[in-house]
Amino acid sequence: MVVNVFPTLSSIPDEAINNKTVIVVDVLRATTTITAALAAGCLEVIPVLTPEEAIAMRERLEDERLLLGGERNSLKISGFNLGNSPLEYTPEVVAGKRIIITTTNGTRAISRAVNGSQLLLGAINNATAVARLAAGVGNDIAIICAGTRDYFALEDFLAAGLIIDQLKNYTSFASGDGAQVAWDYYNVNRYQLNKVLKAGFHGRQLIELGFEADIDYCAKVDQVDIVPVYKGGIIKACQDSCSAGS
Amino acid sequence: MVVNVFPTLSSIPDEAINNKTVIVVDVLRATTTITAALAAGCLEVIPVLTPEEAIAMRERLEDERLLLGGERNSLKISGFNLGNSPLEYTPEVVAGKRIIITTTNGTRAISRAVNGSQLLLGAINNATAVARLAAGVGNDIAIICAGTRDYFALEDFLAAGLIIDQLKNYTSFASGDGAQVAWDYYNVNRYQLNKVLKAGFHGRQLIELGFEADIDYCAKVDQVDIVPVYKGGIIKACQDSCSAGS
Repeated sequence: MVVNVFPTLSSIPDEAINNKTVIVVDVLRATTTITAALAAGCLEVIPVLTPEEAIAMRERLEDERLLLGGERNSLKISGFNLGNSPLEYTPEVVAGKRIIITTTNGTRAISRAVNGSQLLLGAINNATAVARLAAGVGNDIAIICAGTRDYFALEDFLAAGLIIDQLKNYTSFASGDGAQVAWDYYNVNRYQLNKVLKAGFHGRQLIELGFEADIDYCAKVDQVDIVPVYKGGIIKACQDSCSAGS
Repeated sequence: MVVNVFPTLSSIPDEAINNKTVIVVDVLRATTTITAALAAGCLEVIPVLTPEEAIAMRERLEDERLLLGGERNSLKISGFNLGNSPLEYTPEVVAGKRIIITTTNGTRAISRAVNGSQLLLGAINNATAVARLAAGVGNDIAIICAGTRDYFALEDFLAAGLIIDQLKNYTSFASGDGAQVAWDYYNVNRYQLNKVLKAGFHGRQLIELGFEADIDYCAKVDQVDIVPVYKGGIIKACQDSCSAGS
């Protein structure tokens, strides 16, 4: 088994995704939030690229259980039910619901990764669960950091390192250079994840916008034991016993 | 001044390059080798994307001083005068010569970066010189790691961190996340550059092919005080007093 990390989304070679287990990471905040939503009892999450697509899909699906979530410039989109804060996605709000979500980087990363044999969503809040599931599948693993608009985002690289650290508990593998450096970076910072997230570019932006409590949540390891798994356009929760099959 | 690092070549946003001082880094081995060649008295280096282009250009230019250099799969290209080893580019061989060079990752990275206001080549062997020159220009800086075929290459990220470490001696700047992480990575490894280079994917490949001495050279800080500067298709040496102008 080989594990590679791609620090930004852009132009990942097809061979790095095809027939691999792909883990998409967007710690601030899409993959954290989708994980939190599914852990709170949301039935499924449908990722789309644009707000217009989200609205059109809601009209087409005609289901009272549908909610629209996501952000542009980190803020809730006009007319949407929910923003991109994991703290909004409580059982009271999302249990039994279907959520159509669009975010700047996260949903774009998911759409890049759909040709993986398995497409899992990872973050700090479900690191152990996603590592355990990916190890169990047994394929090579590509961890794709969503980044911030094609720029490197340190929180995603840090989470990749954490997931790799957890993978070591479940399987043996060879690390590509990106995986090695991400793991090194995590090891240096493992006792200060919160501080590191708040010092990053996106973290500082979110604090300015009043979302510091989101970062506190996003920086906490293993809040939930759920892995969001994307199949055929829909993300559902996969707990340990599920199949992430292709 | 803002400094960003792009850990792989692929799909860097245009805004990150236009009007910036771009430093292309391909430690193993293109930018190290081009730097070594110019330090050894080579007049200029002309980077091209393919061996066919190199051969056609030699025919077109009809200059007895021309040599062809470069690699495919790390090995000298059939019919070429030189491979991609910095140790081949001695004054005896290259002084007074013009070299047309093509390499798998390095020349591709250069061609991606030509829209920078300045395009400098950096490596471990000229880290201080390139940092000093870039700081003197005063523009925002984008350090582009060539990587290995769209995969993260740890040696380039490490050199980016070293160049950032040197930049701190010459100017003050804000670090993007990639720059921050590269600097952190360098700091953890600053006393073991050689060991880290040999442990990376490309380093291990080069050792297998018999190029361990190349890595020893490529890992040595500030062997030369020259910065290769690309302008209008040609790379020339720029020492401290030169202008890297746009």
